[in-house]
Amino acid sequence: MFASTPEPPYYVVVFTSQRTPGDQGYADMGARMFELAHGRPGFLGAESVRNAEGAGITVSYWESTESIAAWKADAEHRVAQELGQQRWYERYAVRIARVERAYDWHAAPRAAG
Amino acid sequence: MFASTPEPPYYVVVFTSQRTPGDQGYADMGARMFELAHGRPGFLGAESVRNAEGAGITVSYWESTESIAAWKADAEHRVAQELGQQRWYERYAVRIARVERAYDWHAAPRAAG
Repeated sequence: MFASTPEPPYYVVVFTSQRTPGDQGYADMGARMFELAHGRPGFLGAESVRNAEGAGITVSYWESTESIAAWKADAEHRVAQELGQQRWYERYAVRIARVERAYDWHAAPRAAG
Repeated sequence: MFASTPEPPYYVVVFTSQRTPGDQGYADMGARMFELAHGRPGFLGAESVRNAEGAGITVSYWESTESIAAWKADAEHRVAQELGQQRWYERYAVRIARVERAYDWHAAPRAAG
């Protein structure tokens, strides 16, 4: 779940979406896009959650706006984007933002029982 | 689900988290924090998704880093942050980013059956 990202600055793409009902090939394509993005120059990581009602947020992290633009223009990704509009999404929003500050926190190991 | 935000630039806080098991007052506090954030100066909206495994992403949108800092320092919110570390979260990450570009898409109404 948790992406390991470098010190800021870097970029984040926030993709908020509402799925249509049913899978219709979505899970397979999602896995393929995840795999494909991982191989792209400038890709730093991604985190994604979808709930039982089909609402989802995916955040992907990138070194630069150029690497984001190149990923958006990728031929196989463009096919997925097209199918997304035809089949998989009712609605989505995309925001591209420059990460300026980041911090995280882990629980100390909790005693069992 | 979908926040209605103005034209960029504005700021986003990306909060990625893994919950501990059980509710332990989390849902009530979450609702209260949502209500409280809505009344804060500079708050523009929020979107939040958590799946059945307890992984969640919440994104909140703000006019400025100053409005984000004021919300983080809010007394009631600080109590919630403290309880978050004591009870509700195994792990979380926070990223503060400046939104530079945004777009969205809606499906055209689909014909029924």
